[in-house]
Amino acid sequence: MPQANDANPLAGGKVFEQLGLIGCGLMGGSFALALKRSGRVKRVVGFSQSKGSIERACAIGAIDEAATSAQAAVTGSDLVLLAVPVAATHATLAAIQSFLEPNCLLMDVGSTKCDVVAAAHQTLGAKIACFVPAHPIAGREVFGIEHADAHLYENCQVILTPTEVTQPERIQDANALWSALGCRVRQMSAANHDKAYAAVSHLPHLLAFAMMQTITQQPLGQDFLTLAGPGFRDFTRIAASAPEVWRDILLANRQDVLAQCQHFQRQLQAFEKLLSQEDGQALEALIRQASLTRSNWTLSQPAS
Amino acid sequence: MPQANDANPLAGGKVFEQLGLIGCGLMGGSFALALKRSGRVKRVVGFSQSKGSIERACAIGAIDEAATSAQAAVTGSDLVLLAVPVAATHATLAAIQSFLEPNCLLMDVGSTKCDVVAAAHQTLGAKIACFVPAHPIAGREVFGIEHADAHLYENCQVILTPTEVTQPERIQDANALWSALGCRVRQMSAANHDKAYAAVSHLPHLLAFAMMQTITQQPLGQDFLTLAGPGFRDFTRIAASAPEVWRDILLANRQDVLAQCQHFQRQLQAFEKLLSQEDGQALEALIRQASLTRSNWTLSQPAS
Repeated sequence: MPQANDANPLAGGKVFEQLGLIGCGLMGGSFALALKRSGRVKRVVGFSQSKGSIERACAIGAIDEAATSAQAAVTGSDLVLLAVPVAATHATLAAIQSFLEPNCLLMDVGSTKCDVVAAAHQTLGAKIACFVPAHPIAGREVFGIEHADAHLYENCQVILTPTEVTQPERIQDANALWSALGCRVRQMSAANHDKAYAAVSHLPHLLAFAMMQTITQQPLGQDFLTLAGPGFRDFTRIAASAPEVWRDILLANRQDVLAQCQHFQRQLQAFEKLLSQEDGQALEALIRQASLTRSNWTLSQPAS
Repeated sequence: MPQANDANPLAGGKVFEQLGLIGCGLMGGSFALALKRSGRVKRVVGFSQSKGSIERACAIGAIDEAATSAQAAVTGSDLVLLAVPVAATHATLAAIQSFLEPNCLLMDVGSTKCDVVAAAHQTLGAKIACFVPAHPIAGREVFGIEHADAHLYENCQVILTPTEVTQPERIQDANALWSALGCRVRQMSAANHDKAYAAVSHLPHLLAFAMMQTITQQPLGQDFLTLAGPGFRDFTRIAASAPEVWRDILLANRQDVLAQCQHFQRQLQAFEKLLSQEDGQALEALIRQASLTRSNWTLSQPAS
């Protein structure tokens, strides 16, 4: 289903005149810093609903000029990055639509793609040809411009889910751009993306949130927490993720997430049953499968 | 419930003449290396069912002499560490009981404690006075003597669950010994230990195993795995743990684990319900609780 695209990071990439950045948080700020560092953009104009974020983005050199609106940030930009919460995508696309330059490259960085593509179809009109929906797999449990990092996207995968009417040139531009930032670029349909990430990202987050609640909802929960070790630390790291962001992701992809949740509960019940029956042999066999699969798995890295 | 014991690591610790090590895997091998490094033992005699493990333990200097049996390793040892799989504890204790020196310090390193204490009551007779059940919280998803590390126990917690008839001097010795290895020592009942670790360790392992199975039991599971990112990597790290070890832990503590599993499923179902109802506000509130609890949590470290 997914296809790897190991483009030469330095081949065929163009230098953009102006990045219009909408949303100056961890993802947007890091993108601007990385892009400037790579020399692929001459100037960054940024907008954020949060005045403090814009000021900090200026202070750390992520943006060169603060725009007074999303429309202003888009005007004159041959590259536009939407880095707003998923729930704000529709309204933002509608607001900027008539200000987008023809042939600009428009991307987002959202963790769900079907909802973004639907919003684009509803709002962008002919300018949907410019839009290359993107999802960089660069997880951090911290958020906000204060954590922006020019190296955030290095060695991570980026999934592009272009629409049927996205211009091939824009897809090429997007490919070259993310490759230049050190990413491995892959392309698939929005539907396949959302199914896959419901399994490998959204479900794990949901389980990590439920795990934390499981402990704190018990009378001795706070005592239990003081006893937890390194396994717990790593298992629950993603539970510290941003609440609004994950509310939106889980809601946007709720059908796939609920389906994965059903799969998970069946597997958990299989373990429970063997445990209740004290069937050590079958229990060990299941654990062995899981352990081998995990031992043989490695994080996908760009070919270097 | 648990009590911290911030003993001065270097105060009051005695030097042992001979450690009798039964089981030469990651935990036993690392203990022997750490103890030798700290200067708290003069000589280590080791036994393992696996000839290869004994040879490697000799080769890396974890043990000075290979014993031909558990009984031989125990004879003449003023310190005995049982580092065998939990399921082998009962038979091993029964085998060594009459060979244990009076007033030796006998400890184990098992992840469950009620079963170990029960086995000790059934097998040790009066020598149960020497026994200080111990659980160092030093997680690794690797196993075997080849991963033994003199620093494995540094900065970790060790839970002691002495029985009602354990001699106070033995508890003091155990306390001083683990403190000298750089651990924070805490003491509680075996029952409280098992309840707490069902919540913060055994349940997370069970969920991580079930998570791996959830993915691999789907037709596109292998494709999904190639898309997973750093969040998935950390969330599932513990799924790579040793199958036999975790079979034994889950079986030994199955009542507490099943109870925690029920708690977890209720929490997961609460998330599912809000997701189905598209209740963003209540969903965000739950995620925020989980996220705040996790953000405010830190791994317990020895006071330095």
